[in-house]
Amino acid sequence: MQLIKIKKALISVSDKTNLENILKCLKDHKVEVISTGGSYKFIKDLGFKCTEISEYTKFPEILDGRLKTLHPKIHGGLLAKINDENHLKQIKKANISSINLLIVNLYPFEKKLLEKANFETLIENIDIGGPAMLRSAAKNFKFTTVISQPNQYENLIKEIRSHKGSTSLNYRKKVATDAFLETAYYDSVISNWLNSQQNNKFPKKITIAGQLQSQLRYGENPHQQASLYKINYKKDLLTNLNQIQGKELSYNNYLDMYAAVSISKNLNTNKNSCVIVKHNNPCGCAISDNSLKAYKLANNSDPISAFGGVISFNNEVDEKLADEICKTFYEIIIAKKFTKKSLEIFKNKKNLRLISLSNNQEDKLSYNFLGDNFLVQDKDLINLNKNKLQIVTKRKPSAKELKDLIFAFNVCKFVKSNAIVITKNEQTLGIGAGQTNRLSSSQMACTNALKFFSKEVNGSVAASDAFFPFADGLDELIKIGVKAIIQPGGSIKDKEVIAAANKANIAMVFSNIRNFRH
Amino acid sequence: MQLIKIKKALISVSDKTNLENILKCLKDHKVEVISTGGSYKFIKDLGFKCTEISEYTKFPEILDGRLKTLHPKIHGGLLAKINDENHLKQIKKANISSINLLIVNLYPFEKKLLEKANFETLIENIDIGGPAMLRSAAKNFKFTTVISQPNQYENLIKEIRSHKGSTSLNYRKKVATDAFLETAYYDSVISNWLNSQQNNKFPKKITIAGQLQSQLRYGENPHQQASLYKINYKKDLLTNLNQIQGKELSYNNYLDMYAAVSISKNLNTNKNSCVIVKHNNPCGCAISDNSLKAYKLANNSDPISAFGGVISFNNEVDEKLADEICKTFYEIIIAKKFTKKSLEIFKNKKNLRLISLSNNQEDKLSYNFLGDNFLVQDKDLINLNKNKLQIVTKRKPSAKELKDLIFAFNVCKFVKSNAIVITKNEQTLGIGAGQTNRLSSSQMACTNALKFFSKEVNGSVAASDAFFPFADGLDELIKIGVKAIIQPGGSIKDKEVIAAANKANIAMVFSNIRNFRH
Repeated sequence: MQLIKIKKALISVSDKTNLENILKCLKDHKVEVISTGGSYKFIKDLGFKCTEISEYTKFPEILDGRLKTLHPKIHGGLLAKINDENHLKQIKKANISSINLLIVNLYPFEKKLLEKANFETLIENIDIGGPAMLRSAAKNFKFTTVISQPNQYENLIKEIRSHKGSTSLNYRKKVATDAFLETAYYDSVISNWLNSQQNNKFPKKITIAGQLQSQLRYGENPHQQASLYKINYKKDLLTNLNQIQGKELSYNNYLDMYAAVSISKNLNTNKNSCVIVKHNNPCGCAISDNSLKAYKLANNSDPISAFGGVISFNNEVDEKLADEICKTFYEIIIAKKFTKKSLEIFKNKKNLRLISLSNNQEDKLSYNFLGDNFLVQDKDLINLNKNKLQIVTKRKPSAKELKDLIFAFNVCKFVKSNAIVITKNEQTLGIGAGQTNRLSSSQMACTNALKFFSKEVNGSVAASDAFFPFADGLDELIKIGVKAIIQPGGSIKDKEVIAAANKANIAMVFSNIRNFRH
Repeated sequence: MQLIKIKKALISVSDKTNLENILKCLKDHKVEVISTGGSYKFIKDLGFKCTEISEYTKFPEILDGRLKTLHPKIHGGLLAKINDENHLKQIKKANISSINLLIVNLYPFEKKLLEKANFETLIENIDIGGPAMLRSAAKNFKFTTVISQPNQYENLIKEIRSHKGSTSLNYRKKVATDAFLETAYYDSVISNWLNSQQNNKFPKKITIAGQLQSQLRYGENPHQQASLYKINYKKDLLTNLNQIQGKELSYNNYLDMYAAVSISKNLNTNKNSCVIVKHNNPCGCAISDNSLKAYKLANNSDPISAFGGVISFNNEVDEKLADEICKTFYEIIIAKKFTKKSLEIFKNKKNLRLISLSNNQEDKLSYNFLGDNFLVQDKDLINLNKNKLQIVTKRKPSAKELKDLIFAFNVCKFVKSNAIVITKNEQTLGIGAGQTNRLSSSQMACTNALKFFSKEVNGSVAASDAFFPFADGLDELIKIGVKAIIQPGGSIKDKEVIAAANKANIAMVFSNIRNFRH
């Protein structure tokens, strides 16, 4: 157990929530309390005894509060090993006495950042004394108890009461860990903020800090535990997510939602779009005059795959649309808004998750973890520039074909590589996803298109996420009636591929943009 | 510019590399130097003037070096705004003078961690004074210059010389950012170490810290910039990667390598295995008596997809195997070892990347970033327990079929969902990957198997990463001659599915383990 009696406590808190409870407990156990500026006043006002820090150190609080606790009398008290005779002699000589309990919480830097405080305010909200004390006490956890969050008070009180004024070693180690998690998080937020102002996307050392949002029922599979963390100081696509009804969101729900919302945003249309995602791949997307039409088109593009999928609308969901959606089974509906009447209808499907989401800015970097390494890269946010398209065939795409090619390109970007997307009238007809060669992707896209659109596929267009290494994949598309193709180009066999397109009198456009997604 | 003249510098460094250069520069500009214990001796031995910190603060270095710099005279000197009259008055009254330059590097906590130092040593290597000073100086970057790494000396000297003894505001802000990146990284390493000892997989606050390893040519696509970071204190599959020859590794190379090595490890065989990965999916895997045989089987299982792929061997690559590999085009060969003669042969393929890799332990958590959120979960490391397999059909799998089912299960785990893998004699015959419905995955696996194994497929076995929601996917497999199936089970239509298997007199085994991979 290695119990250590708490005789002296130092309290310096920015957030004064529930402080009274702890003060009562300390009083009951005859603990002497020292405190800084605002906390001192607060404690005195509550009617407890307390020594002001400047009286204790015989050194004034100066520099507008920047200098209060950075004093040997404080840090010596927190850092001394009280089972070490030399330490004891030294502190005695220096007139330092041991501080057994530290209660600190830090200036609310992140809160101010979220409130968009100005630069000066943010700088003043970088706590210096607080982290130094937390770190001293945590390092010396064998002897010092360190509390870094108001939500720890309840357990601290239990601990002190159950050990009659002492704390146990296990407890002190646990809260010391929490203190370092706190200082690491705190400096990560500060450093990322400062670094965002330097033109340095890839600094030599980087930290990513998250706050636990929820422990999920399980991860990608039931035998994997999982949790969701939020990077508070960032603002991204899923930031303003609001679950209105339905079962708890699962790990795979989050993956699919993120994919669906990313595609919706990327379709970048003033009209109404509907995106259906299954296993992190789109299986049906459409743009139309209203959301009901868009939904019907998206769902019809592959109703077998859409079953149990995640749907994202760029607009509101009304009564009629809700009725239509309820005819089949989905996991999640995401929309800008749900009308009251639509919510009444959805109430009959209690498990169906409804998410309203106002899109934020897209964060610019993406992270990919490979065990003990991670890759950081720009997100694939490039937009197609119509003026930079390079028509490489004799036949030019018509205006209508061009519109569909752009739609196909925008969807294709989010399909796992190798990807082929066949579209017509801003509706996906067939998607070939995740194949290890391009011929297979083409064949799969054709198979899927023929399944539900054997007639309509004639006169369709297609996008490929990377170049055709040979003409064979293209030939498959030509065979079923695809009349225009968009692809990055850049293969050593481009000539052969263009020749095949010319032979079939179809149009081919080079985007010069590859969109692998692994 | 807002130049600030450096009159007084404080030096306290654990790593004394290149300190002499900076001391010369400070001497040239008549800067007064204060220093702590070891640094003080080092500076005096080099023949430079220096004041010892205890003489400066009139306070002794005590507690075995734990308490040296945590003193108002130091922190007041670092924190005072020297354009603020009140600050100036206050420090004058307290007999504090401004310190304009701080050079600190921290106790080598991470180095000691990697050296597996004992707990006491690690605790003593948690620097308290250093981070406190770095943070004070960095907060006050408007007036104070802070140096946190020896590799910054060269630029510091240039800065001081070009401004005749001063530094500019831009420079000070840049190095202040570096200082906070440093303290954040430092505490992240400490907190993760401490937290790994608590039974707390998902703490309330979490930080992930990486060191830049290399800036990559580009990311997943050419329009995306990217870098590779290493989590030094972790040890995982790619830790001991050693590139022997070939072009620079790309972003997608890393993704594919990680997948290939994970599958190799997971096949968990004493025999020789070969895994070929393309676009993050396996396209051919085999186990055999020697690596040459395993390679031929893996490559033959889908030579079209294997072209340009990443190959991973669990054993060494010799001359004969090298000859065989050189007949076709690959991006990367990963092996435990390459014989000298094999390296001679590979020299003719200068671009081919050769990687030797001694596998480490697998890290237990995986991270998935979705913009401003990230998901943390256990890795999917579950092993199939032969004794827990549930035979649900009348016919039982033979011993040979069972061996193949396990092989199929192990590969299937790494195929993007929905996944179906057909195997025979520990060779993959057909892989259906990344489909949005299970019927399509089955069809694709069958199409791929029939392409190269129209005869051999009769008598094969198959694995499915999740249950069959209907019998239709199963029927496709039965049609081409699959005789045994492994799948998790758990569908409401299990009865129908089992009935279909019994009707065809094939064996079906429930693993009760789902292996989605998105």
